[in-house]
Amino acid sequence: MDEFDVERLAEPALDAPTLIEGLPGVGHVGKLAAEHLVSEFDGELVRRVYTEHFPPQVIVEDGLAQLACIELHAVTADGQDLLVLTGDHQAGDTVGHYRLADTILDVAADFGVERAFALGGVPTGELIEEYAVVGAATAEGLVEELEAVDVEFRENEPAGGIVGVSGLLLGLGARRELPAACLMGETSGYLVDPKSAQAVLSVLEDALDFDVEYDSLEERADEMEEVVRQLQEMEQGASPPTDEDLRYIG
Amino acid sequence: MDEFDVERLAEPALDAPTLIEGLPGVGHVGKLAAEHLVSEFDGELVRRVYTEHFPPQVIVEDGLAQLACIELHAVTADGQDLLVLTGDHQAGDTVGHYRLADTILDVAADFGVERAFALGGVPTGELIEEYAVVGAATAEGLVEELEAVDVEFRENEPAGGIVGVSGLLLGLGARRELPAACLMGETSGYLVDPKSAQAVLSVLEDALDFDVEYDSLEERADEMEEVVRQLQEMEQGASPPTDEDLRYIG
Amino acid sequence: MDEFDVERLAEPALDAPTLIEGLPGVGHVGKLAAEHLVSEFDGELVRRVYTEHFPPQVIVEDGLAQLACIELHAVTADGQDLLVLTGDHQAGDTVGHYRLADTILDVAADFGVERAFALGGVPTGELIEEYAVVGAATAEGLVEELEAVDVEFRENEPAGGIVGVSGLLLGLGARRELPAACLMGETSGYLVDPKSAQAVLSVLEDALDFDVEYDSLEERADEMEEVVRQLQEMEQGASPPTDEDLRYIG
Amino acid sequence: MDEFDVERLAEPALDAPTLIEGLPGVGHVGKLAAEHLVSEFDGELVRRVYTEHFPPQVIVEDGLAQLACIELHAVTADGQDLLVLTGDHQAGDTVGHYRLADTILDVAADFGVERAFALGGVPTGELIEEYAVVGAATAEGLVEELEAVDVEFRENEPAGGIVGVSGLLLGLGARRELPAACLMGETSGYLVDPKSAQAVLSVLEDALDFDVEYDSLEERADEMEEVVRQLQEMEQGASPPTDEDLRYIG
Repeated sequence: MDEFDVERLAEPALDAPTLIEGLPGVGHVGKLAAEHLVSEFDGELVRRVYTEHFPPQVIVEDGLAQLACIELHAVTADGQDLLVLTGDHQAGDTVGHYRLADTILDVAADFGVERAFALGGVPTGELIEEYAVVGAATAEGLVEELEAVDVEFRENEPAGGIVGVSGLLLGLGARRELPAACLMGETSGYLVDPKSAQAVLSVLEDALDFDVEYDSLEERADEMEEVVRQLQEMEQGASPPTDEDLRYIG
Repeated sequence: MDEFDVERLAEPALDAPTLIEGLPGVGHVGKLAAEHLVSEFDGELVRRVYTEHFPPQVIVEDGLAQLACIELHAVTADGQDLLVLTGDHQAGDTVGHYRLADTILDVAADFGVERAFALGGVPTGELIEEYAVVGAATAEGLVEELEAVDVEFRENEPAGGIVGVSGLLLGLGARRELPAACLMGETSGYLVDPKSAQAVLSVLEDALDFDVEYDSLEERADEMEEVVRQLQEMEQGASPPTDEDLRYIG
Repeated sequence: MDEFDVERLAEPALDAPTLIEGLPGVGHVGKLAAEHLVSEFDGELVRRVYTEHFPPQVIVEDGLAQLACIELHAVTADGQDLLVLTGDHQAGDTVGHYRLADTILDVAADFGVERAFALGGVPTGELIEEYAVVGAATAEGLVEELEAVDVEFRENEPAGGIVGVSGLLLGLGARRELPAACLMGETSGYLVDPKSAQAVLSVLEDALDFDVEYDSLEERADEMEEVVRQLQEMEQGASPPTDEDLRYIG
Repeated sequence: MDEFDVERLAEPALDAPTLIEGLPGVGHVGKLAAEHLVSEFDGELVRRVYTEHFPPQVIVEDGLAQLACIELHAVTADGQDLLVLTGDHQAGDTVGHYRLADTILDVAADFGVERAFALGGVPTGELIEEYAVVGAATAEGLVEELEAVDVEFRENEPAGGIVGVSGLLLGLGARRELPAACLMGETSGYLVDPKSAQAVLSVLEDALDFDVEYDSLEERADEMEEVVRQLQEMEQGASPPTDEDLRYIG
């Protein structure tokens, strides 16, 4: 195997597609959102990317082993073509992060991608009532366009910058003159958060002009609320749940 | 030294051999099983693989130093040719894992290997009465074939996938169209487990149609039981042994 | 992206410039001093250096994302040309440190740099009254020259040597026959220390024959003193502040 | 700088020299012994080896900075030519260990080195009365030769093998057919141990047929005994010193 091995599974012609990235991260917001798009619009798997920078691991499902990879899907959402990146892995080392992001951008260029949205969550440390979506972008024009669909650009947020593939799609995208933005749903940071994913997708609907159903995400959100309610009950006779108790339930 | 250095020690012609891997892992199940095959069928050492991804270390036995390596043995088991991989090391870094697995698959291809079995253990956290063997494979056909010899393919097991050379022999094997399976004996995870190794070998006997004696493994198992019995006695007047006490006794 | 990507932003002709390095480190002394020079003398950004050895990250300011980088500025200080290195990152791995320092020295050579000063702090563990500046250099001649402007060269200081880009600019500079010195302001090690930065800049003024205003650094120092005073008050009714409490306030 | 940079400082013709390695390790036994040879026989510095696998660091002595390196010295000990390796660093990563050992063996080959002794300590966990020297070698002949000068070859020692450059000089030396042995002085493991270094050198005197004075090592040993005596007194009114208290005093 080479350092990166891009498996070609289909070659649909896409019309000025937008790259949508949703790899694992805070609250799994980006991952939930990207997988929802693939599922709702019946996406077609077009590429798998393998790399020696992923964990040395196979995932086993129903007895069948699949080498660690990320997947790119062609999705048509109300006439708007998307190239949606999903998966369970990020690179395991610094250099691998850069090279993986570069490889993704190469694949995106092959499909004629004209801009990119990295989806993710921004942790607030508190349970959320109103799910704002915070943005970062590579160009002033894109900031204005996204402000028009209620994305909030804040002076010092996110304070620690944006780490991993999401950050590098912006950073390396800018070096290639690919307009790119990161859309980060507010989320507590303690739970898998389908509601935050829905907030991010709502922004994307307005920005790209498509409509998506949220039934399955709402079901998932209801399940999560039930989990939280049970936790609260369990803890009422006892000590309150610590952050540690709540960390990544879901 | 190059990144990988394959030392050639013998060049026997093998007839459509099967690769059997047994490097260190949970309960040392795979290692015990693979070493048992080499010992019982009087295997011939054919290759040593050295790499700068192994620990920077020599092993010393009776005053003689041997550079860290893994070894491939030609084994004929009742007319069935095997290429058996044994050793004390796995790669020390992610990239090294991938490249080591690739190097092993290259050597296997040179010997005309037609399929591969990675042997290992799957931890249950409890002492085992009945040693089931859990499987994962790269192709549906192999799943069916192994189910016929009582390998269990379970919906979500192993939950964390398969890590290290065992996993990559499947993952990278599939990319090369080499049919491969992992056979994992259930084991507590606390002790070196010769009985689990025997369970894995029993499956292999049926799958590949050979017979092997188990006397030496059974002796080793008896020794382990004596160790466990003594531990239980020691602890009866005191507090019960913790998992930590039992971890990798053997 | 290549391993290192040097972005060219301007090509001013510099007259025998001196390289001044001020990346993050103890008390942020070097960083404060270098940024002060760029700001006071209205430096021109001439190069950005990106590398896959930096954290895989974008910094976000007012919603705009900027890939992790370091920056070189052309500065003219009273007729003396400087090439001033600033930034928020050091390399994340050993090999990256060496290669980053080499890349910086390559850029410096392109601009005709004739010597280099790495600026930093040396931690004393105590609050400082008189800010001495400790030196290390690659050549006896440079030691004598700097002793003449009150830099102290001590028998066994700094005890642990000099780590990171500052150290390697000297070590690799010497291998290229570039005279280089490190100027380290004494600092407690607990606080961002603008006074220590001022002490280092005073030495540089004498060594390179320029004058710089300190108003903004003094303001920053006053703010820090106010912080320390409030901390002391807060703690008078309670237990005294531990080193941990004071670590990198500022 | 390249990955490895070998600086040539002198080109003496050596007659079938023996490589002696003494880098930092348990009790600093190897380092003390090798430095003693260089000092007593007035060695000539012939090579410095720099590498990006060393810590990114300069050492500062009397204000002068020296890039992290290891040094090779030509030593003539009663007519016997030695190439003695000293220094303060080992490689910081696995791959670096292998490549550094290979680079040292390349330099040794250039000087016509015909065999190699790696010097070190083996920790016993107890204060030592009689300093045995434990051996490991790459060939049976060398084992016999060293047994004749009272080196002990034990069935399972050192249990964990030999790690780092010492181990790899044997392991990689054997792959090049360079006879090599490791001589390990017993040492508590808690203190810098000049007496253990003396024991190792005594063996080397007999093996290579030279005589060396021990006055300076004995002075150093007396100083260490005084340190131990003071520690014991200090602790008599208090609790006994723990291993932690004694760790690497010296």
